Amino acid sequence: MKTVDGKNIKRDLCLFDILKLKEGEREGIYTHGTVYSIRDIGGITFIILRKINGLIQCVYDKKGTEEEKKILRVENSVRVKGNLVENEKAPHGLEILVEDIELISVPEKELPIKVNDYKLDIALENEIAVRPIILRNERRRSTFKIEEGLVRGFRKYLEGNDFTEIFSPKIVAAGAEGGSNIFKLEYFGKKAYLAQSPQFYKQTLIPVYERVFEIAPVFRAEKHNTMRHLNEYISVDFEMGFIKDFYDVINMETGMIKYALSYLKENYKDYLDIVKADVPEFDTIPCVTFKEAKEMASAKYNRPIRDPYDLEPEEERLIGQLFKEDYNSDFVFVTHYPVKKRPFYAMDDPENPKYTLSFDLLFRGMEVTTGGQRIHNYKDQVEKMKSKGLDPADFESYLMLHKYGCPPHGGLGMGLERFTMQLIGLKNIRQTSMFPRDTLRLVP
Amino acid sequence: MKTVDGKNIKRDLCLFDILKLKEGEREGIYTHGTVYSIRDIGGITFIILRKINGLIQCVYDKKGTEEEKKILRVENSVRVKGNLVENEKAPHGLEILVEDIELISVPEKELPIKVNDYKLDIALENEIAVRPIILRNERRRSTFKIEEGLVRGFRKYLEGNDFTEIFSPKIVAAGAEGGSNIFKLEYFGKKAYLAQSPQFYKQTLIPVYERVFEIAPVFRAEKHNTMRHLNEYISVDFEMGFIKDFYDVINMETGMIKYALSYLKENYKDYLDIVKADVPEFDTIPCVTFKEAKEMASAKYNRPIRDPYDLEPEEERLIGQLFKEDYNSDFVFVTHYPVKKRPFYAMDDPENPKYTLSFDLLFRGMEVTTGGQRIHNYKDQVEKMKSKGLDPADFESYLMLHKYGCPPHGGLGMGLERFTMQLIGLKNIRQTSMFPRDTLRLVP
Repeated sequence: MKTVDGKNIKRDLCLFDILKLKEGEREGIYTHGTVYSIRDIGGITFIILRKINGLIQCVYDKKGTEEEKKILRVENSVRVKGNLVENEKAPHGLEILVEDIELISVPEKELPIKVNDYKLDIALENEIAVRPIILRNERRRSTFKIEEGLVRGFRKYLEGNDFTEIFSPKIVAAGAEGGSNIFKLEYFGKKAYLAQSPQFYKQTLIPVYERVFEIAPVFRAEKHNTMRHLNEYISVDFEMGFIKDFYDVINMETGMIKYALSYLKENYKDYLDIVKADVPEFDTIPCVTFKEAKEMASAKYNRPIRDPYDLEPEEERLIGQLFKEDYNSDFVFVTHYPVKKRPFYAMDDPENPKYTLSFDLLFRGMEVTTGGQRIHNYKDQVEKMKSKGLDPADFESYLMLHKYGCPPHGGLGMGLERFTMQLIGLKNIRQTSMFPRDTLRLVP
Repeated sequence: MKTVDGKNIKRDLCLFDILKLKEGEREGIYTHGTVYSIRDIGGITFIILRKINGLIQCVYDKKGTEEEKKILRVENSVRVKGNLVENEKAPHGLEILVEDIELISVPEKELPIKVNDYKLDIALENEIAVRPIILRNERRRSTFKIEEGLVRGFRKYLEGNDFTEIFSPKIVAAGAEGGSNIFKLEYFGKKAYLAQSPQFYKQTLIPVYERVFEIAPVFRAEKHNTMRHLNEYISVDFEMGFIKDFYDVINMETGMIKYALSYLKENYKDYLDIVKADVPEFDTIPCVTFKEAKEMASAKYNRPIRDPYDLEPEEERLIGQLFKEDYNSDFVFVTHYPVKKRPFYAMDDPENPKYTLSFDLLFRGMEVTTGGQRIHNYKDQVEKMKSKGLDPADFESYLMLHKYGCPPHGGLGMGLERFTMQLIGLKNIRQTSMFPRDTLRLVP
């Protein structure tokens, strides 16, 4: 009977293996990849292979043969045998002198666009429609490797700080964030919704695990199509108990971001270079109240405050600019948002009940996180619900948390695509979601 | 201006800190937790605190005081100052002689059930309704720590094998798995669905990253309520390119499971002990064809084969039993499933086109994984779609993969809750989903 033992079957070398080969190990190596581009320089043919972690150059000298006609085609999958030699002009300073190429798979059609072009001269609108092939571009695939790297960094930091990873349901009976931006679905004859956030579940698990996190999709039926909104995005959520105040949450996020950015620089350097990301270096992040932040931006840029209870995107941008110019900081925590703009679970500021013990994090002038301390006392929570026009009876299982006891706690939700967008310096959030969902798009 | 630096603010010791304290460091320590249970033994009061990674015993000697009345209440959140001493009867062989207790938070009501009871005498039906509090039970919270540990192990293994983590959309325009078990929703005037699997996206990303994985919710509108079905569950999905055949996928899964189980034993021992999990030890996993497996079970247990093209749950159970009895294996790969039972992207077996190059993994007699090799040739895929009554025009963006080239590839999807259920030896999948979704349940 056939059995498997799970031991790594490695027939071919990956890029990292190749980069580590010493003198004497470089002859007769095997590797595989996809033909990314073909160049003819001074009569010599170079094949650039796309591999898992980057590109490798192959020198091919079977000009004019039958084999050449079959092999030399972009997006062919091939297996190569050859000798590795140094060439300072090649990627990683190495190239493979091809002895033999085996053709593994051939495309049906030629690519309709030059995917191997660094600049990719295509409008975003059109690009999204052909993302399945555009993602084969080195720069595009680097964007999403960086997103992966951020997630790994965030997760490692939270795991190291005793957070438990949770998986909360996405089909729910009530919205956590209120408002009308919620997707409805039919669920075996009942009305159901798609979760706007894991808020209720994160809080419910505070007495269980004290610290929890989840990195998962959330769904917002926002009707406006903007550069910074998606209808489905990845939310990096955490919640922590036994806090002294919400600055414990702010501090945890600061540590998490610092860790993830240094993790990226250490492990994703090639990708950061490809997209030319400017990774911020910092020791501390300033905190300023909502009211102060508005006033500072208004004074400095001579812009009247129109609505004292809301922060317009343009104001966010100016606050970001101010903190860059005056404090050399890419980040700023804006604290104490008005009660009006925060959901019913936000704790009011005892010193000024028009404001809450909450915050947003602005990264280069854009909100990337919303968080704060939550109400943990049962009576306070019931009262706050009523003051917001909600019926506590609709939240019976959520309120078990408050009724049967839980410590003071707080947490946050960070939009992964927004954070990545600001890190790389992109202009549209659809550039950091592989297959974006907006009001017009369900495909691909 | 206030600033934060992200450095760990640790006012109190966590359980791992406490366990590491040496002589001379054990006086006047601070910790916090929730009162899990209170015991009076021989006139001495013991308070068991629930902390992040387990329980710690505190000895309390302020009998008859006003403080006692306030403190001695289950689910109170408290901060304790005291001296750590050895006591072989206490959890971890240690206990804290309390000097001072600070009351941090008090429940509004007493728990309606004895959550600190190991056995938890409550029917599953009733338990699910009060999961927000039942999860505070040591045994229940251990189940989901083990689930977390499995995910960490799977992820670490896949990351170490050069898989890229992806985040595919859950709101989609077409189902990947076919059939009617798909949730519909209204999406800005268009018809949309909830993703049954990340299949199309995983495959689309094969030419981009060669190896990808995703651990995320999937949605199945199955109308039957069984012990092993959920309508929303966590799917551990991976897909790998440049495979020789589907045994490469089987081998990768075997390695992943081996790694995750040993990772669990190393890092989640306390939790495994609490739920009394029997973690399988194995070197190899046997592989047997669908046809053979059916015949073997039929012969051994004298059970006629009713449908040669399907595997009934009872047959799965018997095949599992047979491989345990005759080969001492908790796992068995059943390969070469009939074309009829596999989706349109499954590759047919060239040696017998009634069967596919696919497999299921049975774990203790239950299917926990489905996988196989996928069609990568454009013409073959179009033809197969037509033979299954599908219109290739409906799959235009998925077919870009095949049209513009991709290497031979395969992958799988594993149900996390099922795997955990079989590992722990539970009887109902609702025991391994914190907040299960079935045809009757949307709350909590």
